[in-house]
Amino acid sequence: MDQFGCLFCQSTYPGDPYSTFCPQCREPLLLHSGQEKKTIHSEKSNSLERYLDFLPLSTIETPLLLGQRETPLIPLYRLKKEFTLPQVFVKNETVNPTGSFKDRGTVVAVQNSVQFGITKIGTVSTGNMASSTAAFGARAGLKTIVLVKEDTALEKIIATSIYNPILIKVRGDYGRLFYGSLELGKKLNIRFMNSVDPYRIEGYKITSFEIHEQLRPHAPQYVIAPVSSGGHIIGLMKAFIELQTHGLIEQMPKFIGVQAEGCSPITQAFKAQKDRVERIEKAETIAHAISNPDPPGGNLLLKLMREYGGEMMTVDDPEILSAQKTLAEYEGIFCQPASATTLAALLKLNKKNALSAEDRIVLIITGTGLKSLPKNGALSARIHQTDVDHLEQTLSFLDA
Amino acid sequence: MDQFGCLFCQSTYPGDPYSTFCPQCREPLLLHSGQEKKTIHSEKSNSLERYLDFLPLSTIETPLLLGQRETPLIPLYRLKKEFTLPQVFVKNETVNPTGSFKDRGTVVAVQNSVQFGITKIGTVSTGNMASSTAAFGARAGLKTIVLVKEDTALEKIIATSIYNPILIKVRGDYGRLFYGSLELGKKLNIRFMNSVDPYRIEGYKITSFEIHEQLRPHAPQYVIAPVSSGGHIIGLMKAFIELQTHGLIEQMPKFIGVQAEGCSPITQAFKAQKDRVERIEKAETIAHAISNPDPPGGNLLLKLMREYGGEMMTVDDPEILSAQKTLAEYEGIFCQPASATTLAALLKLNKKNALSAEDRIVLIITGTGLKSLPKNGALSARIHQTDVDHLEQTLSFLDA
Repeated sequence: MDQFGCLFCQSTYPGDPYSTFCPQCREPLLLHSGQEKKTIHSEKSNSLERYLDFLPLSTIETPLLLGQRETPLIPLYRLKKEFTLPQVFVKNETVNPTGSFKDRGTVVAVQNSVQFGITKIGTVSTGNMASSTAAFGARAGLKTIVLVKEDTALEKIIATSIYNPILIKVRGDYGRLFYGSLELGKKLNIRFMNSVDPYRIEGYKITSFEIHEQLRPHAPQYVIAPVSSGGHIIGLMKAFIELQTHGLIEQMPKFIGVQAEGCSPITQAFKAQKDRVERIEKAETIAHAISNPDPPGGNLLLKLMREYGGEMMTVDDPEILSAQKTLAEYEGIFCQPASATTLAALLKLNKKNALSAEDRIVLIITGTGLKSLPKNGALSARIHQTDVDHLEQTLSFLDA
Repeated sequence: MDQFGCLFCQSTYPGDPYSTFCPQCREPLLLHSGQEKKTIHSEKSNSLERYLDFLPLSTIETPLLLGQRETPLIPLYRLKKEFTLPQVFVKNETVNPTGSFKDRGTVVAVQNSVQFGITKIGTVSTGNMASSTAAFGARAGLKTIVLVKEDTALEKIIATSIYNPILIKVRGDYGRLFYGSLELGKKLNIRFMNSVDPYRIEGYKITSFEIHEQLRPHAPQYVIAPVSSGGHIIGLMKAFIELQTHGLIEQMPKFIGVQAEGCSPITQAFKAQKDRVERIEKAETIAHAISNPDPPGGNLLLKLMREYGGEMMTVDDPEILSAQKTLAEYEGIFCQPASATTLAALLKLNKKNALSAEDRIVLIITGTGLKSLPKNGALSARIHQTDVDHLEQTLSFLDA
C-alpha cells in the first residue's frame, strides 16, 4: 500500500488517488519511496518497467501506454563552441507522445487510476497537461474532464479537444477552480490529476532516472529546469534524492529552477529567503506554460531547494525568445518558450563565469514549440522572394 | 563507393549526392544495396548504427544526430474491439525529432552530404520536409536553402523558419521549381534533397527495419502507408526487399499505398493498369502533405507495386477526417490528415471483409497533427460552459 507524507508536519496518510494536499498544512503530499532495496531493471527497455521499484505501481498495464520510451539526451554541439560552454545536454522531453513532459506524470497517474478501478479522470489546464491527460484518458477509455478558464482561446485547446474529452470552460477564480476541482472530484469520483498530484510527481522522476543512466559513469553537476507550479522540478529532484538514499549515486546534482521575470513568485521568495511564496497579482510573460502566479508546490520547492542546495533564478522575455531561436538555429531543437528559459539561464550563468569547464549540465526541455508557434510577423523579415527564372541570381546574391 | 541503379533501363552510375534521376529515363535512381552479407547490429541502440550495413554511410557522425531512436510500434487497443479488427499496429513516426517521417530520410541525406564535404543543402517543400531539412541543416551547421511556392501562407512555414534557413518564396510552376532546383544545385554546389532523393529513400528504409525487429518472431502481412511523391513507400518497400534478398525474412508484406480521392494520380494509373502516372490538373484534399498532382516517384512505385504484389487505393476527405478523430479519440494518437488515410483505408478494407483475423497490419502514421491543427470551428461544438459555483451541477448534468 502506498503511503503519503507531508514534509511540513511529517504526518503520513494512506495513499489515495483523490488526495493531493496535506489536510493540515495544505501543502502537496509526496509518496514515500519505502526503504526496501531498489534496483533498476536494466533488461527492460520501457522506462516504466525499468524503474518500477521506484514507482507507486504494482504492475504496468502496457496496453494503456502510448509507446513511451526513454527521451534522448542530446549534447549541445554548435552552441558549445559558439559560447565556450561546459558540457551541456538537452533532455528532450518534446518527443514524448503528446509533445511535453506532462506525459511522464500522466501515464503514472492514469496507471494508478486504473489500478484503483477509477473510470473518470480530470485536470485543470489549458496547455500541455490538458492534451496529455486527454490523450492518455482516451487511450484508456476513461471519461476525461478538462476544465479550462473562461477566456481560453479556442486555438489553445484544439490540441486537447481532438481527443474528445468533456471540455468545460469555467468562469471564476482560477485558484478556486484548481482546489475546488479536487474537492468535487472526491465527491463525484472524478480523479483530478492536477499539476502537483503526487502520482504525477512520481512520473516526473522517470526523466531523472533516465538522465542518471544516460550520463553514467558520469554524473550531472547541474540540472536546470523551468518552474511553474513546482510539481515537475520536485519530481526531478525526488528521483535524485532517492538514488542517493539507495546508494546509487554519491552526490545530488545542483538544481536550478528558472522562472520568467514576469511571473516569478518562487524565485522572489527564494531570493528574499522566505519560507512561503506569496501570490503575485499580475503575471505577464511570453512563457505561458510557466505563468503561474500562485504555484501550489511553491513552498515545498523552497524547502527542497534549501535542503539540497538548489537555486532559483529568473530570465526575461527577450532572453527567453532569443534562447528559443538560438536553440533552434544552432542545435535544430524547437521548444516552447517556457523550455527556452533553461538555455537563457545557462547563458546567463556562463556569462557570469559561474560554471566550470568540467561541469556536466542538463537542460530540461519540457515541451515542443509546435503548440505555440511564434506570431507570423516575428519571422517574416527572413523570407526572400524571387521567380523560377531568377532563382540562380537570387541564390548567388544571397551567397547561398 | 555507392552505386546508383535505374530500375527502368537497368543502367548503373556511381553514387553522387547531386543526382536524383536517371539521365536517360528521368525516373528516380535507387542505391544498390550490394551483395555482401548484411547483419543487423543488435547491440547498437541507435537505429542508424544498428542498420548501418543496409545504409550508404561508412560511419555515423553522432554529433549531427538529433537523438533519433526507434519509434514505437503501438497496438491498436480500443479500436480493435470497437471495429473487430485484426492485430493492427501504429508505427508512430510523429515522435521523430521534428514530428514526421521526413527526419528518417533527412538524417541519412545530411550524413551523406557531410561525408562528401558538402556545405550547402536545400529542399523544395512547405511542409514536413522543409522543417526536417532546416532542423538537421541547423544542427550540422550547413547553409540550408528552403524553396517554397509563392502563395505559401506564413503560418505554414513558421515551423521551418524557426531554424533560420535561407527561405525563398518562388513564383512559377512547381514542377519547374522541383526539377530546376536539382539542376541549379549541381551548378552551385547546393545539395538539394527533395522528395525522391536516393539517400532520403535509404533513410526511409530504417522504419521498415524497425518494424521487422519490433514484430519478431512474427511478420506483418500488410503495411499501409500514405503516398505522395512515392519516395517514402518506395523506401519502406526497399527495406523489406533487401531483408528478403539477404535471407532475413521469408515473405514480403503486402504494401497498400493510400492516396486522397482529391489527388490520386498513382492510384488512378494503378487501377487502370497503366505503367505511367498522368499528372492531374486539380488537386484538392484536406490531406495537404500528400497532395502531389505530379509525383516524381509515381512510375517507379507502380513498377514495384506490380512486381511485389502491392495495391493502391483511395479514401475521401470525410473518411480521412473521421479517421483522424477516431485515432485520437480511441487511441490517444493525434496525427496529420495525410497519416489518417491509413486508418481510413484499413476501416474500408475491414468493412469489405478483405482482412483475416490472423493478419498483422502496420499503419505508418507519418506526421504529427500539431503542425496543421484543425480549424477552430470544427471542434467548438464540443465545448461546454459553466462557472465555478455551478461546476458540480454541470458535471452531474453531463454525467461526467
